[in-house]
Amino acid sequence: MRSPSQTVRILNMVVRTSDRLQKARHFLKANNVQAFFVPSEDAHQSEYIADCDKRRHWISGFTGSAGCAVVSEKEAALFTDGRYFLQASQQLDENWTLMKQGLPKVPTWQEYLVKNLPAKSRIGVDPTLITASDASSLEYELQSVGSTLVPLEKNIIDLAWGAERPAPPTDPVIVQTVEYAGVSHTDKLASLRKDLEAKKIYGTVISALDEVAWLFNLRGSDVECNPVFFSYAIVTLDQTTLYVDHAKLGNDVLKHLGDHVSIKSYNEFFLDLKNMAATLSSENKKLLINSKTSLAVEFAVQKQNTLMDRSLVNDAKAIKNPTELEGMRQCHLRDAAALCHYFAWLEDQLGQGKQLSEVDAADYLENLRRQQKDFVGLSFDTISSTGANGAIIHYKPEPESCKIIDPKLIYLCDSGGQYRDGTTDVTRTYHFGQPNDYEKRCFTRVLQGHIAIDRCVFPLGTTGNISIVGSYLLDPFARHALWRDGLDFRHGTGHGVGAFLNVHEGPHGIGTRTSYNDSPFAEGMTVTNEPGYYEDGKFGIRIENVLLVRKADTPHNFGSRGYLGFEHVTLVPIGNKLIDQNLLSPEEKQWVNEYHVECLEKVGALLPKDSPGYKWLAKETAAI
Amino acid sequence: MRSPSQTVRILNMVVRTSDRLQKARHFLKANNVQAFFVPSEDAHQSEYIADCDKRRHWISGFTGSAGCAVVSEKEAALFTDGRYFLQASQQLDENWTLMKQGLPKVPTWQEYLVKNLPAKSRIGVDPTLITASDASSLEYELQSVGSTLVPLEKNIIDLAWGAERPAPPTDPVIVQTVEYAGVSHTDKLASLRKDLEAKKIYGTVISALDEVAWLFNLRGSDVECNPVFFSYAIVTLDQTTLYVDHAKLGNDVLKHLGDHVSIKSYNEFFLDLKNMAATLSSENKKLLINSKTSLAVEFAVQKQNTLMDRSLVNDAKAIKNPTELEGMRQCHLRDAAALCHYFAWLEDQLGQGKQLSEVDAADYLENLRRQQKDFVGLSFDTISSTGANGAIIHYKPEPESCKIIDPKLIYLCDSGGQYRDGTTDVTRTYHFGQPNDYEKRCFTRVLQGHIAIDRCVFPLGTTGNISIVGSYLLDPFARHALWRDGLDFRHGTGHGVGAFLNVHEGPHGIGTRTSYNDSPFAEGMTVTNEPGYYEDGKFGIRIENVLLVRKADTPHNFGSRGYLGFEHVTLVPIGNKLIDQNLLSPEEKQWVNEYHVECLEKVGALLPKDSPGYKWLAKETAAI
Repeated sequence: MRSPSQTVRILNMVVRTSDRLQKARHFLKANNVQAFFVPSEDAHQSEYIADCDKRRHWISGFTGSAGCAVVSEKEAALFTDGRYFLQASQQLDENWTLMKQGLPKVPTWQEYLVKNLPAKSRIGVDPTLITASDASSLEYELQSVGSTLVPLEKNIIDLAWGAERPAPPTDPVIVQTVEYAGVSHTDKLASLRKDLEAKKIYGTVISALDEVAWLFNLRGSDVECNPVFFSYAIVTLDQTTLYVDHAKLGNDVLKHLGDHVSIKSYNEFFLDLKNMAATLSSENKKLLINSKTSLAVEFAVQKQNTLMDRSLVNDAKAIKNPTELEGMRQCHLRDAAALCHYFAWLEDQLGQGKQLSEVDAADYLENLRRQQKDFVGLSFDTISSTGANGAIIHYKPEPESCKIIDPKLIYLCDSGGQYRDGTTDVTRTYHFGQPNDYEKRCFTRVLQGHIAIDRCVFPLGTTGNISIVGSYLLDPFARHALWRDGLDFRHGTGHGVGAFLNVHEGPHGIGTRTSYNDSPFAEGMTVTNEPGYYEDGKFGIRIENVLLVRKADTPHNFGSRGYLGFEHVTLVPIGNKLIDQNLLSPEEKQWVNEYHVECLEKVGALLPKDSPGYKWLAKETAAI
Repeated sequence: MRSPSQTVRILNMVVRTSDRLQKARHFLKANNVQAFFVPSEDAHQSEYIADCDKRRHWISGFTGSAGCAVVSEKEAALFTDGRYFLQASQQLDENWTLMKQGLPKVPTWQEYLVKNLPAKSRIGVDPTLITASDASSLEYELQSVGSTLVPLEKNIIDLAWGAERPAPPTDPVIVQTVEYAGVSHTDKLASLRKDLEAKKIYGTVISALDEVAWLFNLRGSDVECNPVFFSYAIVTLDQTTLYVDHAKLGNDVLKHLGDHVSIKSYNEFFLDLKNMAATLSSENKKLLINSKTSLAVEFAVQKQNTLMDRSLVNDAKAIKNPTELEGMRQCHLRDAAALCHYFAWLEDQLGQGKQLSEVDAADYLENLRRQQKDFVGLSFDTISSTGANGAIIHYKPEPESCKIIDPKLIYLCDSGGQYRDGTTDVTRTYHFGQPNDYEKRCFTRVLQGHIAIDRCVFPLGTTGNISIVGSYLLDPFARHALWRDGLDFRHGTGHGVGAFLNVHEGPHGIGTRTSYNDSPFAEGMTVTNEPGYYEDGKFGIRIENVLLVRKADTPHNFGSRGYLGFEHVTLVPIGNKLIDQNLLSPEEKQWVNEYHVECLEKVGALLPKDSPGYKWLAKETAAI
């Protein structure tokens, strides 16, 4: 789903920011603040954002997905992490100082605000763009130097951007019918109220876009690759209010929502919160907010009327129902069929000596996905990378700068689709020529980690369907084979995947993030299994499947508590050519062969027997 | 090292406690408290305690190693965990209520003090026996019902016990010469002062007995199986004071300690702390205390003069120096030679149809260890268990109640020795008849976990020799093979081991304790690798080696940070008869064979070629 606005983003084009900064500094003065903080998130703490929210990009010229900026009277500083050092240094002009996060003696943006700005500074923030918890800890640190955080009514970047700022999207909202959603929104609301009652909480604010979309069985297209729409919701024990621009709602949506959901415009949300404050206080009722809720929300409803805890909706959304699980299975089969067709074509083209760029290939793949039933769009920008580009973990090929695919190098393709019945995310690493022994060894170590995660079985706790094993605890299984060779990879092993929703979702995941500690696996969750290995300037390897967390069928049941395991729904051949069979145990070999039999049986059924896709699939699934 | 005082402890003998409770309640009244809390620890929070400190045992009759008691005007309650429900219910008389910790609706001892005792109760404690941090959180909870914690000058149990209470031990202290310790106590003190300076702390209280023994290169025998002596120490930037009864110190010890260590009597410790308080306050100096420091210490020196943090001495002690590491290797070889001799004898005796009790066998083993060079004593009571007794994880056979070893059942032996050059701890599980398929499968799953831990390689962090992998993160490797069969075990996988010191030491370990989170592995640490499987009423399986944490020799070095792995110093045959070879991967088989070659080479060198021990070793190390 590469949009026009994106194809003009050229990595090496430096935006001149002098004028933009001059305008912003005018508004600094007008607001009597000495600095303004520009995060990369929108008001919903979305990972992917709409063009109208790309404020940090606009003011700095830096297009990376992570990082924030501080504009002060004299300075302009851009903070980003190791993934983006090179890109940011190429994109920032002379007005900007690049703060390489994680390097010794480089301040974090918080330290910069406290220590690098003059004491007693007034630091402006847009309270809708900073979370209440981040603001709270920042305010505490600023106190030590007498500086203060000043929430501003109008965002200084928006003021500077002015008429050139893109309008917020107005795409229509669509209904995710129960046929796909599995559970009606009225049942979800009833269940949410039960959770609120159990916790003795009056209501909850829902500010994450995918949580609103999931709860009301609605989808949108306000944010590229994420089927969500700008909205908020407030659900109390006696009322449900959805805040979304009326223009986006057709009659089908209104009919779907029914009489029990009040619909108000997106802009009325904060006013309503303010109006609720007095009643909440006098009746000693609390609204649940979470770590992603903005300072503006806490400010409007007043802190004493809130209760900060996990999002009940996020936790409920993470457990897929049987319809969603079956949808995930089905869309992954169609997605795999498209991929088989794609890799067959790519292998053939390269074999014929055709010159194909990384973007040419990605576009061809998108077209194949588009032909699949219930396809809606990509779930993220396709990573189609040859050789050294594969080592750039968040690489996105651009038409103007991408490389021609070299069949003598490793090719890594990480891609996914949004389908009405689910969301896919799959990475395969192939070699269309002859890999060397070192490449094979590295690939095989990654594969052994992938297999170890796939085969994991772990115990349930004594209550409910929740594992006693924190989801972070499985991470070393993905790395043990690499570690033994002195290899490793610098990203997490897995993330949750939405059901026709965001390709990244929480609260669980496989990795060392401390938040995973509090989110053990439960039956019905989805998670990716994507160990990798990257050698700068040479190649990247990643093997990624989407897994469903399921009851495991164990011969015994010690502790009478049951055990969980995984079901892989991604069924695309692994690429036998890169496997060093001498490194595999018989159990691992058996896994590869059984996996391939499953690919051929289930995906082969969707491909005509005489098609290039089927022939490629049959070839690639030959037993080792 | 079974002492006379222990052989009369019969599991099923119920102590009549009416008289004892009556006396204790007399002192409750005299001290104007409504209840008295009786923990199982001594003033040093030792895991093993001297007879004079067995207060909970004396007042309740319960001999288990874990649990505490509350004696109030009307009630007497004993709190213990699942390991001891059966034993406690057999040992407690009608005066006592057993509180089964962990079962639904059973209060913890803290909840009991808050909720079961009348509001506004005055609850007596011996401030030397409760940690400052436990007391602090308990006081906070008691506030809610208006109850208070009352630190008493004299322990109520000691008053009731009176003249019958055993005298504190007076065994002589011995010097652990540099030949064994590797580093002189003056160097250790200098290093401790460097750590204090780096943290800008004036001094530290050392209250754990093994920390004092390690720091001064001294050993004692005040506590069974633990070569420690009753003592405290205070080390400041300008002074070192060791508090220990003079009668225990010979001239060699005095000469060893030298002029720079002030020696005061054990009883002067608290008075000195009180005297320090004013100076500390006026000069704004702090003494470091840790989570195991008693309330009495915090009280004497005054809380505002303390700083609660990790113990610097405990952290330093955990990293063994090259001499200690070599000592561990050497004593494990001699220990293994004794074990080979033992198992050869046991197999022969049982083969001849001899009737041997579990204690007969344990005593024979102790005698064999006693013949080894530099043997001092056992490092813990030998667990020699046949059949179902093996499933009792903390089983200790008693002459009056133990079983005759049945060669048709699995035999589990967990034992260890204290040697001048190190401490051993080894478990082997053998079958002297013909194991059935199920027993073999369970054993093999345990073995696969053992091998997985032994072969682990994991990355170092970017600074120093400390791993980025929390020691708890390796735990699932010990269980993954069991989990796949729906099996598991209910104890940690590994603990630190002292160098001629306590067999259990921290701060690290392999398991899910949250404290392990903050104690990643570092080069030079010791840790046991002891997965198991237990089937109540049938059998117990455990395979335990002691490992040293060492730099791993990896073919690559991603991140240029180095990798760590393990070296096993325990070299006793695994027991091929219980292995189901069909379950092992070629790599696992290779591990078994290589391990056995190492056993034969290294331990065989210590046994005469024509001895039964050597012949047994050669038979048991045959390749599979």
